[in-house]
Amino acid sequence: MGPHPAVAAIRLAVRRVLHDVLTPTTPESVPPGGREPLVLVACSGGADSMALASALAFEAPRLGIRAGGVTVDHGLQHGSDLRAAEVASRLAAFDLDPVEALTVTVGRDGGPEAAARDARYAALDAAAERHGAAAVLLGHTRDDQAETVLLGLARGSGTRSLAGMAVTSGIGGRYRRPFLGLDRQTARKACMVQSLPVWDDPHNADPAYTRSRVRHEALPVLEKALGKGVIEALARTAQLSRDDADALDDWAATVEPSVRDDSGALEAAKLYALPPAVRRRVLRRAAISAGSPAGSLFARHIEEVDRLITGWRGQGAINLPGRVAVRRQGGRLVLRQG
Amino acid sequence: MGPHPAVAAIRLAVRRVLHDVLTPTTPESVPPGGREPLVLVACSGGADSMALASALAFEAPRLGIRAGGVTVDHGLQHGSDLRAAEVASRLAAFDLDPVEALTVTVGRDGGPEAAARDARYAALDAAAERHGAAAVLLGHTRDDQAETVLLGLARGSGTRSLAGMAVTSGIGGRYRRPFLGLDRQTARKACMVQSLPVWDDPHNADPAYTRSRVRHEALPVLEKALGKGVIEALARTAQLSRDDADALDDWAATVEPSVRDDSGALEAAKLYALPPAVRRRVLRRAAISAGSPAGSLFARHIEEVDRLITGWRGQGAINLPGRVAVRRQGGRLVLRQG
Repeated sequence: MGPHPAVAAIRLAVRRVLHDVLTPTTPESVPPGGREPLVLVACSGGADSMALASALAFEAPRLGIRAGGVTVDHGLQHGSDLRAAEVASRLAAFDLDPVEALTVTVGRDGGPEAAARDARYAALDAAAERHGAAAVLLGHTRDDQAETVLLGLARGSGTRSLAGMAVTSGIGGRYRRPFLGLDRQTARKACMVQSLPVWDDPHNADPAYTRSRVRHEALPVLEKALGKGVIEALARTAQLSRDDADALDDWAATVEPSVRDDSGALEAAKLYALPPAVRRRVLRRAAISAGSPAGSLFARHIEEVDRLITGWRGQGAINLPGRVAVRRQGGRLVLRQG
Repeated sequence: MGPHPAVAAIRLAVRRVLHDVLTPTTPESVPPGGREPLVLVACSGGADSMALASALAFEAPRLGIRAGGVTVDHGLQHGSDLRAAEVASRLAAFDLDPVEALTVTVGRDGGPEAAARDARYAALDAAAERHGAAAVLLGHTRDDQAETVLLGLARGSGTRSLAGMAVTSGIGGRYRRPFLGLDRQTARKACMVQSLPVWDDPHNADPAYTRSRVRHEALPVLEKALGKGVIEALARTAQLSRDDADALDDWAATVEPSVRDDSGALEAAKLYALPPAVRRRVLRRAAISAGSPAGSLFARHIEEVDRLITGWRGQGAINLPGRVAVRRQGGRLVLRQG
């Protein structure tokens, strides 16, 4: 008798990613010294990442891969160190090796959720480097993806902000999300039938967090209004939006040199001739390379710069984040950091 | 003392569109016989389109434009003919001329909402032709746009389905939506301060209709979860998505001839080299020109055809709506209607 369907599903998802890790496309993903490649799982102790850890522990040895695990103690709750130690001991009980509990200090930049995420990824990056890991598996599910798309939608910044999380991301494609096509229910079920105790992060249900409100309030009502397929539709939107945004970003990158004059200034007439979607991306690229931080540059900033091209009536300099000023002078856009 | 800010806002929105109508870009938008151009408003009797009719009645004479109005009786409710007659008399009271109540027969294709919409636009098209109207104004607001984006999101068909309604659409850009940047509250307020009685369509609050559930259940909860700016963010997403979809559609149209061989078959190797977002659009175009109806062709169909290119393992023909079969034969895709 084979494993429970939920367990079969999580193992298949992990196996596919491990196969992919074993087919290195870049020289640096070949482990040094010819040792077996190491794959780490990042585990919070929640159902999704516990299921992921269990599947990695099962599949890795069968493919000649070493499997390790890390858990991050954000230090935001009393006793979080004890919990991290407990998660680490559960990872060790899967025979994962190495196993580490990483302690981080969460700053304040960009709000509590962004600051915690930044600290977490910095710690995971460092752990991956330290152990020479070929990949770090993350437990995000299709439900997390749907939430991310809705959060992006609320920003109103267009196609890229609807692209959600990538299956593969980070330096050299280090981060992998095997469960992005799997629903949360399958991960929970897989823990249950394997008798794995899971820890429910109280933050996940805390309405002070936007993501928690999206999960517990917005998505259930959207499902009621729009039908059961809405999670799947949001996840599909992520993939399609990612491909669209990639294609348009490439187009903008290709065309950018051709709209600059010899001094590097952007020529208004050539920008005007571009499709609006491409022109706005060229303007965004130019703003970033002039020193405007990508994370603070919103659609409305770029729209204002765009009006120097499409609605020119002698307006003054447009001020962008990062003290970048954009001026139209003699048929050219000049971007300068002050 | 000028008009109430809400009235000023609706008039400004209409004035901008009328200026645009007065600057014809195509020969057929010049009215025959040198008469003053005619602009019609489509009015349901609801607040949005009553506000629109009042603004058109005020602005048109000042710009040398004749203003008329039409209302559509869908015949779906008892007494709808009487209501249509009442709306027509209110339009006539604005001194609009011509004024017509158009009776339509609603079919069943695509569900009740789509069938009513199809019948309505057919009647509006016919009225515009009959009267030689340069434009037909529609009362859709930013809130309607946000609802349309959410409905598109639920389909999960990508960027084009997030593009919402266009400011200008229909044959020769006939339909104009002056209120697409205005919120519903402003239209209601403008009716109130002008003492215009408005009719609330009971369908708008009927939870049997998906749009009604989106309006009364989904959007309020989304605002609560994501913040007050969500309507604006959805409307901005529509505009950005529209531009992105337009640019990518153009790209696909431009590249399509170059991936076909002399016999017109699609070459798999050339398709493979395209960015996924462009390749899927080329495949969609090819399916439609082979006879597959655009409205029945979903993202999942195109994904399956795409796997003949990206995941070729000798699979058989893919059957698309409209009895179109897609086969891979000798490095080429062959589409045939059976």
